[in-house]
Amino acid sequence: MSLDHVDLDGHDRPLVVGVDVGGTKIAVLVVDRAERVLAREVADTAAGPQDGATDQIATVVERTLRSANAHINQVAAIGVGVPGRVDPLTGAVTLAVNLGWSHLPLGAQLEARFGRPCVVENDVRAAAYGLHRRRVVGEVDDLAYLAVGTGVSAGVVLHGRLHRGARGLAGEIGHVVVDSSGARCACGERGCLETFISGAAIARLAREAIETGRATSLRGPIEPTAVDVYRAAAGGDPVAIEIADSVGRRLAWAIHLLVMTYDVERIVLGGGVSHAGATFLRPVEEELDRLRSTSELAREQLVPGIAQLLPPGADAGAWGAVSIAGAAQTGKRRREVGHVQDA
Amino acid sequence: MSLDHVDLDGHDRPLVVGVDVGGTKIAVLVVDRAERVLAREVADTAAGPQDGATDQIATVVERTLRSANAHINQVAAIGVGVPGRVDPLTGAVTLAVNLGWSHLPLGAQLEARFGRPCVVENDVRAAAYGLHRRRVVGEVDDLAYLAVGTGVSAGVVLHGRLHRGARGLAGEIGHVVVDSSGARCACGERGCLETFISGAAIARLAREAIETGRATSLRGPIEPTAVDVYRAAAGGDPVAIEIADSVGRRLAWAIHLLVMTYDVERIVLGGGVSHAGATFLRPVEEELDRLRSTSELAREQLVPGIAQLLPPGADAGAWGAVSIAGAAQTGKRRREVGHVQDA
Repeated sequence: MSLDHVDLDGHDRPLVVGVDVGGTKIAVLVVDRAERVLAREVADTAAGPQDGATDQIATVVERTLRSANAHINQVAAIGVGVPGRVDPLTGAVTLAVNLGWSHLPLGAQLEARFGRPCVVENDVRAAAYGLHRRRVVGEVDDLAYLAVGTGVSAGVVLHGRLHRGARGLAGEIGHVVVDSSGARCACGERGCLETFISGAAIARLAREAIETGRATSLRGPIEPTAVDVYRAAAGGDPVAIEIADSVGRRLAWAIHLLVMTYDVERIVLGGGVSHAGATFLRPVEEELDRLRSTSELAREQLVPGIAQLLPPGADAGAWGAVSIAGAAQTGKRRREVGHVQDA
Repeated sequence: MSLDHVDLDGHDRPLVVGVDVGGTKIAVLVVDRAERVLAREVADTAAGPQDGATDQIATVVERTLRSANAHINQVAAIGVGVPGRVDPLTGAVTLAVNLGWSHLPLGAQLEARFGRPCVVENDVRAAAYGLHRRRVVGEVDDLAYLAVGTGVSAGVVLHGRLHRGARGLAGEIGHVVVDSSGARCACGERGCLETFISGAAIARLAREAIETGRATSLRGPIEPTAVDVYRAAAGGDPVAIEIADSVGRRLAWAIHLLVMTYDVERIVLGGGVSHAGATFLRPVEEELDRLRSTSELAREQLVPGIAQLLPPGADAGAWGAVSIAGAAQTGKRRREVGHVQDA
């Protein structure tokens, strides 16, 4: 990535700050115009309740600036990725269920604190945009970043532009109904994709398998998590392998769906569940192979390598926040800042 | 619509021709800059085998120009919508299964014949673009035109641009897998959406119901078509109502899917099957209502009126072809002509 697209306020402001707000950590990057990392800091705590969240985040930003020997006045813009729904026009976090935030004017508060423009975006979208801008998976102008973690959603870049949709709700594929007789989803509907492949869904599937009395290494004093399931699958546990296979099939279905609708060139798989690496990816590839073998159209659409894991060390969240800030064309009105599509 | 976006070669070429090539007819519109219709002609024959197809189409174009008292030299551009896969950069029809065409250089042949620029596009995409440009469903910049007929596919307009996808295959939602244990699809896969809601699928469902021996007015000397099924459903036939309900549920699922992925503001339903009107739409609305009642997210996304039938008399195919020609910016290189996204 080059940050040439940042409309810097002269050369006095050569830096960009990217903040990735997670459920259990806050990661901050300070980079210069040539995308050199001046400092990276991670606070292994959540931002906490929304009353003090902006202060928590600001503290980590300040600490990272000190590590970089930089001053806030050198910063062209701050980008923040948040796991939730965001209004990029105002910088407000409308709803972040996992953080417990609702209608937090995060962007405005950070701007007031730092006196620098601040762009807030959904973390998965920001990551997708960053993958594109930084050419992390090559010269690809149409890509989806499919994050499988606590929730399931996709950030989509079309023709090099972030696709937010008419109401900023594009990419909510975790709530496409896979099987209307399935488990109840947090959204109220039954059998959404999320109820089959999210981290919580994998833990539930493991619990259900244990309850049937089947022999499995997953049985123990503590309920298994998705991490445990993939570890057991890698170790040959048949119940865990079955669950990993089922997740892989559903995920391949989702990849097929994203390709059939958007016709993207690449789908990058990330999120907590994907950290299982090869054990996570193998069943996905097997199902994609099956689809290719049965359908000429699928063969044409699902070209080899269309789905890939987020490269190790990609730091997609923080770099996504940097990219979003870079696209914000600092100095223009925030309304334009929000319209990353037009960047 | 205004055709101001047509870069006319001066005022000597104030006309645009739109051609809708169907399986059983060819419709041609000649319109002026103010979208006044100078002539409309429909030939109730197919364009035939690809050897003579261009001649057949050209003959109808010439006849329509005569009806309009117009000369080809007054035409800025010709747009052609074809039910199949098209390479808009070259104007070639790569594959049109229902017309029996393969690699037909239709655009180049029509240009050679008429000496005027010719833009060829998939008919469903052209229709979607025309619905947007002509504001047929209001000031909507993000819409999908979902055509349910022999096949099932969607034309998608995002931010006022036609979305073709990285390889021109976007919107192939007829081949999203609904149930992998379903009937074999023409694409090779099992249980694609098309195997549940296309005209052929509806006829198959009727045949299967008859074979079970159930009492139904659909039984007769001739196998029922989708038209027969909807007529019988309107008349209260329980088997036909069951089929219409099942199609409606699947279609609502597809609408939900399109909204969850693209976040479009409006989905316009067209294609042969949709001609059943209220009998076709009612079960769709019922299922959308059910989704809204169970999920807050669905309630937010599936706003009332999000799905609507193509307005009667919209002539979406021919007007779509006109719009595509209009967007082509006549006089520029055909490469740009193809990139309607950038219009």
